[in-house]
This record gives sequence, structure tokens and C-alpha cells, in this order.
Amino acid sequence: MTHATAAHPPMRPLGEAARAASRPLAAASTEEKDAALRAMAASVRTHAVRICEQNAQDVAEAKQDGRAEAFLDRLLLTPARVEAMASVLESVAALPDPVGEVTEHWERPNGLHVRRERLPLGVVLMIYESRPNVTSDAAGLCLKSGNAVILRGGRESLRSNRAILEALREGLSQTALPQDAVQLVPTPDHEALLELLRLEGLIQLCIPRGGEALIRFVTEHARGVPVVQHYKGVCHVYVHAAADLAMAREVLVNAKASRPGVCNAAECLLVDRAVAADFLPEAARALQRKGVQLRGCAETVALLGQEGVPAALASPEDYGREFLDLVLAVKVVDGLDAALAHVARYGSEHTEAILTRDAAASARFTREVAASAVMVNASTRFNDGGELGLGAEIGISTSRLHAFGPMGLRELTAQKYVVLGNGQVR
Amino acid sequence: MTHATAAHPPMRPLGEAARAASRPLAAASTEEKDAALRAMAASVRTHAVRICEQNAQDVAEAKQDGRAEAFLDRLLLTPARVEAMASVLESVAALPDPVGEVTEHWERPNGLHVRRERLPLGVVLMIYESRPNVTSDAAGLCLKSGNAVILRGGRESLRSNRAILEALREGLSQTALPQDAVQLVPTPDHEALLELLRLEGLIQLCIPRGGEALIRFVTEHARGVPVVQHYKGVCHVYVHAAADLAMAREVLVNAKASRPGVCNAAECLLVDRAVAADFLPEAARALQRKGVQLRGCAETVALLGQEGVPAALASPEDYGREFLDLVLAVKVVDGLDAALAHVARYGSEHTEAILTRDAAASARFTREVAASAVMVNASTRFNDGGELGLGAEIGISTSRLHAFGPMGLRELTAQKYVVLGNGQVR
Repeated sequence: MTHATAAHPPMRPLGEAARAASRPLAAASTEEKDAALRAMAASVRTHAVRICEQNAQDVAEAKQDGRAEAFLDRLLLTPARVEAMASVLESVAALPDPVGEVTEHWERPNGLHVRRERLPLGVVLMIYESRPNVTSDAAGLCLKSGNAVILRGGRESLRSNRAILEALREGLSQTALPQDAVQLVPTPDHEALLELLRLEGLIQLCIPRGGEALIRFVTEHARGVPVVQHYKGVCHVYVHAAADLAMAREVLVNAKASRPGVCNAAECLLVDRAVAADFLPEAARALQRKGVQLRGCAETVALLGQEGVPAALASPEDYGREFLDLVLAVKVVDGLDAALAHVARYGSEHTEAILTRDAAASARFTREVAASAVMVNASTRFNDGGELGLGAEIGISTSRLHAFGPMGLRELTAQKYVVLGNGQVR
Repeated sequence: MTHATAAHPPMRPLGEAARAASRPLAAASTEEKDAALRAMAASVRTHAVRICEQNAQDVAEAKQDGRAEAFLDRLLLTPARVEAMASVLESVAALPDPVGEVTEHWERPNGLHVRRERLPLGVVLMIYESRPNVTSDAAGLCLKSGNAVILRGGRESLRSNRAILEALREGLSQTALPQDAVQLVPTPDHEALLELLRLEGLIQLCIPRGGEALIRFVTEHARGVPVVQHYKGVCHVYVHAAADLAMAREVLVNAKASRPGVCNAAECLLVDRAVAADFLPEAARALQRKGVQLRGCAETVALLGQEGVPAALASPEDYGREFLDLVLAVKVVDGLDAALAHVARYGSEHTEAILTRDAAASARFTREVAASAVMVNASTRFNDGGELGLGAEIGISTSRLHAFGPMGLRELTAQKYVVLGNGQVR
């Protein structure tokens, strides 16, 4: 592959500027960083009108391009949404600083005192699509964790992102921290992205957030730039034979219908044969009241048919599928082993839930399921940085390496060993 | 790049077999894994003669190929070295099991109980060069941490590795664990390696251990297979103005001369101008008694010349260079800021040491230096899994992502969230 004729500005200077900024940023005190975050928030407020004006142009263009309503809604910035961006920056300032945190310490027989201490990763490359609030949210999280960030937003939100970036950098210019702590890729095309994905040694972490096609592209083209994937969520709710069925129904409806378009929404119900006849009809009616369509296995369809509840027959592709919609695959299974096998085969290692009152069953499920979050008697929707208590998240990783699940401030750091001696030699 | 005509057996089945083995392995109890490790150790002892015979053929061939003495020594297996391999397997059995370890737990205001729990990564691809003991050491560490491993050793040690692998698998065959927990790539050529490095989704972690060329090759060709790099160690010893100079001399000599061919050996001495005249002559003489050649900056050469100690003038390339030999670069610096700048520019983020009695200086050094281990008044040689108390190491990562520094059993795991509720919905 050659792209010598690229019309975009070269990306290496961006990477080098980020790296240069990352050193003073790593050494900055918590007070300096928090002051910078508050200055950035104030500047976003000051420039709210301009940000909304630029966003209106992006939205108008997207409408002309015939984009769907959901897309336009993700793209849209209102004064309230701009205010929310400023508030997020202030709430990140209020979070504890992960840098310098000592996570463990111990003493060696030779008297060496060993501790592990958090340090920033260095430079983070954030790749995202249409939501312009990611520009300021990611900038805030990276700055607080001492990392310089290169933001590569979508083409469709370029004007909005530029306006937000200018506000953030103007805020930074009033502080001791380098403006290049926060940079935006001016040309969000594939050429520039390919070049960024080859900046080994300049970028320590790449976070792609968006559709599966984007994530695959990034994963396949990264060369020596580590990628933490945020793939899809094919989340199961498994109703075990010993479940509290009323609780199970409520959790299931919440997991599926409270916000069907997000990655921690349930996509498939597994139900033990022993309780299928008791559980399915009422659960199906509750789901259908929320507008959920069911696609069941033959047994499910037959069972529901007897009760007069309509359900379509699932195709094989409906298992392991991320509907992101008011659709739920359903399967009757033959106990815990069958449920575990189904989850291992079709799950995406995002979020899996079991409903049971049997401690042995939940212990096996939590131990054997390899997912970033395993829920017992709780909705899959709780796999979220805010809900789990991380404060804020930059994404949810489905890669086991480095971070698995919601990535908060700590997940934007590494840990080094610090060893204090009094002359020890080996 | 096309390699449709590859003569090697396809690698995907190896990856699929490893993945299939990884599930029962992840669910195995500590007792099952420890019994397997002991069975593997016993089998290595049983087959010691055969392993040494096969190794003798590898060594004979390497001699014919005119390999250097150091290379032959790394390749050689003696009965004592085979016994050491068996002992390592037993000592890994005696280490605590990281899988299932709860690292943190907390409660949310809604009553959800959240904990983080270690799980295996899945499948590890270990790529290494001539030392055949890595075959059994890596197999042991991966098995104990619940990971299946694909071992890709060097061409020159293929017979030895095969004999070791057969012994390990024969040991495993007497246990409940799958033999495919441990596999060896039968054709250690580039084609097979390229194919392995494209098995996205089947391999969760690739660890290349060896020369820089190997690590670069792996890093550049990996597609969607995460790589934790083990690059070179360009380690500095910085003698601060407030150092105990006698201690500094002893630590420096140890860091440089105790084992110059390893990655945690010192490659460069930085000394504050304020103590250079006091420190350098005696330190240089102590180093030269160990056979160390010095390559100093002009100031160093002049200072030593006045004392009648010969030292060559360093070329610019001598800074940032990994000599892996009895050679040391030396530079007089103008205090802590200059030392920090030199380390940031020339260090490899492996190990950096400061000698000082000034708490403020050591605090700044440990905070601002981004290296996997930062030593205060101790030798760089302590950056080692065994010395730091991790029990055993599979390598030393110079990537900040996932693991930074020595990788022990814990670094071969991920962490998932386990959330216990009583019907919570969002």
C-alpha cells in the first residue's frame, strides 16, 4: 500500500507534538490539571453559541445527505448538551487523580521496599464517530489521567469538533499546561487515519469507539500502535431453574427495553426448560407491552403459541446477533452447562447475566463466563463506568488485554515499579 | 504480500485447538493445575536423557553453522539444566493461583456489590529464540494462569523444543487437563509466524522475547493480535549531587558488571557536575578492574585524564545504545533536570536508577521517570520478576499497556467485573 500522493497534512507532526506535550502533562500536579479542566469548562460555556452554530451546519449537511433520525440526534448539540459537556469536565476535575496512586507495596527479604505506582500511558489516539460530546469528554479524561490526546472524530461532525477543540485549547492557554495536550485531526479521512495507526512509539493507546466496521478497520491497520477494542455487545440474560421469576421478568424487561440501542442492552434470553412454561408467557407479554418482538427457538414458539402469545421463529443468525433494537432472541436450554456453552459460543465477552437464587449456580456462572462484566440478579445495563462507580468512562473494552470492561481514569494509566533501597546490589 | 504457496502446515487449526483447550483450562481448579504441573515436571525428568540427546543434535548443527560461543551456551541443555526446568515447573505449582483472585470490591448506593476478579487471558502466543528452557518455563506459567499456550521457538532449537514438548504433553496426558493446553509450532519459519500473527480472536496475547529484530518483525506484522513488547534495556545510573558516593560506586559496578549481557544491566552513567571530580576517578578504576571500558563525554575524558585513568571519547550514538557488553557510556550532567531530560530522550523505559540521599530529588525522579522500574539507591539488576517478588516471570515488558515491567502470573490474567444484585434495574 502506498499513499505518497496523500493530499492531507502529514500526521507525524501531530504525534510528535502530542508526545512533547505528554511529558509536562505527566509531571503536572493534580491542582494544575484540575484548574485546566475548569478553565476548559468555562471556555466551552463562553463559546457555547459558536459551538451550536457550527453544529447546526454539520446537522444541516447531514440532513441534506439523508441521514437517519437517530444519526441526526447523536450529532445534534443543543445549549443543554453543551452545558452538559462543560459539567462533565468539571465532574472529571472532581474525581481523584489516578497518577501517582500506589496500588500495592511490599518489602523484600533484602530490605528493598517495592511499590507499584500509576503513571500516564503517554499519548492516546481516540477515534470516534458522530457524537461531538466525545471530543470534550475524552479530552477531559485524558488530561486528568496525564495523557496527551489526539482526537479523530467523524467527518460529519468536523465543524462541531473544531469549535469544541478551539474552546478547549483556549481554556488551556490560560493555564500552565501545554495546548497540545489536546489536538484534533484536521482531515478525518482514511489516509490520515492509516498514517496515525503507524505512529509506533508516538502513540501508546488507540481507542476506537463506534460501529463494528470502524473498529475492524482500526484493528486491521494498526502497526505497532496498541488498540483496545470496543466491539459489540451481544449480552445474554439467563433465567436459571432456581430464579425468582418475578425478579427475572423485571430484570429482563429492563435489560432489553430500557435503552435497546446501547451495547449493554440484552440481545438474547436463555431460559431453563424446567421453568420455561412458568416464565416465558408472562415475560413475553411484559416485553411485548414495551414493543419488543421475540424470535424464539421452536420450543419457545410452541410454548408461547399455547398461551396465545405470538413469537417468530428465530433463524440461526439471530443467536449471536446484536439487534440494537426492540428485538430479542429467545432459547430454551437444558440447564447451566447448556447456558454456559451458548454464552461461550455466541456471547461477545461484553456483559452476561444470570438470574438465580442458587449460590452454586451463580458461583459457576461468574467463574466460568469470560465477559467484561458478569451480573447476578441484576440488569446487564449496569455495565457502565458511572453505574459501577468508576466516575466516568472513555469506553467499554471487550479486549481482555490492559482493560476489560468500562475504562475510567485508572484504565488510562500504566503501573511502574518504584524500588527504594539503601545500596542493595545483586 | 501473498503466501498461498506456503509449504508449512496451516496454523489456524493450532489456534483453534488452543482456543478449545482454553475453556476447560480456565475453569480448572488450582489443585488440577498444580497436579498437572507436577506431572509435567516428573515427565521432563523421565525424558531427560532423550531431551539432552535431541539437544546435542541442535548444538552440533549450530556449531557447524559457526555460531558464537554465547549462542551455543544459550542453546545447550545439560542434565542440570533439564533438572532446573523440572524444578521451575514445581515452583510454579507452589505459587498462588491468580485466577479467581478478587483484587477489589465495593458496594454501590443501590446495593449492588461489585468486585473485580482475575480470569485467564485465553490463548498466549510465545515467540522466542534459542533458549530451550523457555519452552517449559512459559508452558508452566501459562498453564498455572489458566491460559493455553502456542510456543514458537527458534529454528535452531527445534529438536530440543520438540523433545521437551513431548515430555510436557505426556505429563499432561496423565491428568484431567487437555494436552492442547501446550502446543509447539512445528515449522518455525516466517510464513507460519505471519499466519499466527493474523489469528485475531484466537490469540489474546503475543509475547515476543529475543533480539530487537524479532520483536520489530512481530510488532510490524501482527494484525489484531495484541503484542506486549520486550524491547531493549538502555538503563541509566544517575549519581546525584547528594549521593553517598561509596554506595553509588558499589551500585554502579554491580549494575554494569555483574552480568553485562542482560537487559537490566546499566549502559550509561550520568553524574552531577558537582560530584563528578570526586566520584568519577575512583568509580572508573573500580569499573576497569572488572574489565569495563568507558566512553565518556569530553568533560569525563578530561577529568579522568587528569587522574591518569584512560577513557575513550563517546560518539553521539553511544548514548541510548544497548552495549550488552563490558562497555559503559558516561556523561557529566548539570543536575536533576538535565538527568531527567537525558533519560527521557535516551532511555528505553526499562530500568532507571538514581543514587541520592535527597528525598526531594528521589521523589521527583521516581515520579517523572517513565520506566517499568525506577530504583532509588539500588542496582538496576533488581528489575526482575524473581528479585521483585513476583515468583517467576515470562518476560519484562517495555510497553506500558497491560503490563509494564516483569510479567508474572498475574500479568497473564485479565480482570472482569462481577456484580451481585437482588433484582436491581436501571
